[in-house]
Amino acid sequence: MNMLRNNRREFLGTTLTAATAAGIAQGGFFSSSTYGKENKKLGVALVGLGSLSTNQIAPGLLNSAHCKLTAIVTGTPEKEKKWADKYGIQSDHIYNYQSFEKIASDDSVDIVYIVLPNSMHAEFTIRAAKAGKHVLCEKPMANSAADCRAMIDACKAADRKLAIGYRCQFEPHHMKSMQIARSKELGAIKMIEAGFGFTIGDPKQWRLRKELAGGGALMDVGIYALQSCRYLLGEEPKMITAQETKTDAAKFAEVDESITWLMQFPSGVLAYCSTSYNFNGLNRFQAFTDKGFIRMDPAFGYSDVRLETSKGKVELQAQDQFATEMDNFAKCILEDQNSKVSGEEGLKDLLAIEAIYKSIATRTTVAVES
Amino acid sequence: MNMLRNNRREFLGTTLTAATAAGIAQGGFFSSSTYGKENKKLGVALVGLGSLSTNQIAPGLLNSAHCKLTAIVTGTPEKEKKWADKYGIQSDHIYNYQSFEKIASDDSVDIVYIVLPNSMHAEFTIRAAKAGKHVLCEKPMANSAADCRAMIDACKAADRKLAIGYRCQFEPHHMKSMQIARSKELGAIKMIEAGFGFTIGDPKQWRLRKELAGGGALMDVGIYALQSCRYLLGEEPKMITAQETKTDAAKFAEVDESITWLMQFPSGVLAYCSTSYNFNGLNRFQAFTDKGFIRMDPAFGYSDVRLETSKGKVELQAQDQFATEMDNFAKCILEDQNSKVSGEEGLKDLLAIEAIYKSIATRTTVAVES
Repeated sequence: MNMLRNNRREFLGTTLTAATAAGIAQGGFFSSSTYGKENKKLGVALVGLGSLSTNQIAPGLLNSAHCKLTAIVTGTPEKEKKWADKYGIQSDHIYNYQSFEKIASDDSVDIVYIVLPNSMHAEFTIRAAKAGKHVLCEKPMANSAADCRAMIDACKAADRKLAIGYRCQFEPHHMKSMQIARSKELGAIKMIEAGFGFTIGDPKQWRLRKELAGGGALMDVGIYALQSCRYLLGEEPKMITAQETKTDAAKFAEVDESITWLMQFPSGVLAYCSTSYNFNGLNRFQAFTDKGFIRMDPAFGYSDVRLETSKGKVELQAQDQFATEMDNFAKCILEDQNSKVSGEEGLKDLLAIEAIYKSIATRTTVAVES
Repeated sequence: MNMLRNNRREFLGTTLTAATAAGIAQGGFFSSSTYGKENKKLGVALVGLGSLSTNQIAPGLLNSAHCKLTAIVTGTPEKEKKWADKYGIQSDHIYNYQSFEKIASDDSVDIVYIVLPNSMHAEFTIRAAKAGKHVLCEKPMANSAADCRAMIDACKAADRKLAIGYRCQFEPHHMKSMQIARSKELGAIKMIEAGFGFTIGDPKQWRLRKELAGGGALMDVGIYALQSCRYLLGEEPKMITAQETKTDAAKFAEVDESITWLMQFPSGVLAYCSTSYNFNGLNRFQAFTDKGFIRMDPAFGYSDVRLETSKGKVELQAQDQFATEMDNFAKCILEDQNSKVSGEEGLKDLLAIEAIYKSIATRTTVAVES
C-alpha cells in the first residue's frame, strides 16, 4: 500500500533532521529511578508499512533513545522480508492484520504504533489495547468523534496509554511558539491565521477515498492548522463557520479539496484558517498579538521549519520529530503519566473537524460539541 | 472635527512618497488633443477638512499634474482662514455645509472630493452632482448599497462622473500584482488570504459611532482586504460567511471591533479574510497560485508597501497615491470615460459588506446580492 505520493513526501520533507539518539537523550527527561538501572528501550510494533513508516517513522526509531522497532504488522506479504532484513526483525515478530491478536503474547512489543489509513485507526487501536499494548496512533485520530471516544474508552479499560502522532507538539520551534504565546511576552493573542495544503498526486490513492480517509485536505493537513490555533491559545474553539470548494470535481468526488474556516474561542479571539489538496505553498501560522506577532512559515513539514516573531528570527536546534514524539510517549509510559497528545487531545480536533463539515453542509455557524 | 487619531495616521503612514507632479505627468496618459493646448488643471473642492484632507489629500493635490485645490467646504469655521492662507483660496471659494449649493456657480470647481464621515457621503455626492460637479468620494462609498445606488443614479442624471477613493488601484505595486494575477504568469489563483487592521485610538471619534461610520473596522479598513481579493481575481464574491468578536464591548458598543470572513468566487476560488480595530500588524494579502504566490505585506498604507512573488521581490517607484488617483479621475473627466473605481465598483464592495454583516447577524452563509 503506497500510502503517500512522492509529491506529498517531497512537500513535507524527506530529509530527516540530524538529531541523534544521543542528542535527544541529552534532554534527560528520565530519572534513572523511574525505570531501573539499565536503559532498556521500549519495543514498538509498526502497523502499516506505507511511506510514512518507511521514510519517517522507522528511520526515526533509529534515532530514538527509548524506543526501538521490534515488530511489524503489514497487509502486504512482500514487505515482510525487506523489513525483516533491514531492521533485523525475526519472523515471529511479523504479523498481518488477521494474526494481529497474537501480538498480545509478544513481550518484545510495548507500544503499537498505528500508521494505517484513517478509517482503520479505531479498529486497530482497540485491538491493540485489548492485546495489552500501549497505543500511538497517527493523526487524524479517527474518522469521527464517536470513534475517538471508543478508542479512549478501550485504552482506559485496558489500562494502556494512548497518544496521537502530533509530532509538531514536540518540535522545538512549535514548543517555543507556544511558550511565547502562553507567557504573553508579546502580549495576548488577538487573532490567528493558519493554513496548510499541498497538491496531492495519484488520484487513486486511499487519501482520496472517503471510506478510508474519512475526509480530504482538512483531515490530512488542515488538522495541523487547526491544532496550531488550539495550542497557541490553549483554548478550544466554541463556534465554527466554514466554506468548501471543489474545482476538480472528479479527483475530489469523495473528499474535500479546499476548505476555509473561521473559529471563535472563549477568550473572544478569532482564527481564520485554510487547507487544500490543490496547491502548494500554504504552510504557516501567524498569531497577531498586542505587541507584535508569532509566525511560523514554513510551519508543518518534517524539517526546515522557520519561527519568527516581531522581535526577530528564533533559531533552534532541529530534532528528529518522530524520535522525539516516541521518546515522549516512552516517558509517559514509564512514568505513568498521560501524554499531552492524548486521545482526549485527538478527540478535540475531531470535534472541531465535525463542526467544520457540519457548517459546510448546513451553511450555518456551528457550536462545537465538547 | 479630528477625523483620524494619531495612531491611525502613523499606522497608514504620514510621510508622503516623493513623487512629483512632473514624475506623474511622465506617465503621459493625456493626449494633447483630448483637452486642448494648455495644461489647465481641473479645480477640486475638498469637502471635509479632517486628517485625511489635511495630511494626505491637500498635499497630494500639490503633486497632481492635472488637479489643483481651488475651494474648500467645511463645517468648522476656524479651519477656513488656516486653509485659505496655506493654499491661497479666496473667500468666495470657501463654503460650509449649508452654503454648499452655491458651488454650482463656482467655475473654479470641476470636481468635488468628499472626505466626510461615511454617513454623509451619499448626501453630499447627490448635492454635488445636482450642483453640476464631478464627484470623487472617499471609501467606503456609503453606509448601504441603497445609498450607493442613489449616488450612482444622481451622477448619471446630472451627467457627471463619479469615482471612489480606492487609491490602491492606482498604486504601482498593487497594479503590478493585478497584472501578474490576470496574466496567470504564476498560474491561476487557487486561494487568497487578506487582512487589514490597526488599533484605533480616541474612543470618542466618529469612526466608532454607528450613525456616522455605518460600521467599524470592516467599513474602514477591512474594505481594503475585500477589494484586494476582488481586484486580484477580477471576480465578484458569490457566497460569504463571517464571524465577529468584541473583546472591548464598551469601546466597540456601536461598531465592529474584529471580523473574519470567507468568500467563495464563481471560479471556485476561496478567500479568507480579517479585519480589526484592536491590534496592529495585520496589513497584507497573499494569493496562492498554481505555480507560486503573489504577496503584499505591508500592503495598504499610504507608503512603504512591499510586493513579493514566488520569483522574488518586485521593486517599483513609489508614487503619491492621492495625486495619482486624482490625475486618473481628471483623465476620465477630460476623455469622457468611466473610472475603473466608479460608483459601480464602490457598490460591489457595499454588497459584499452587507453580506458579511448579514452572515454575522444570521449565523448563516449568505449569497451576495448583485
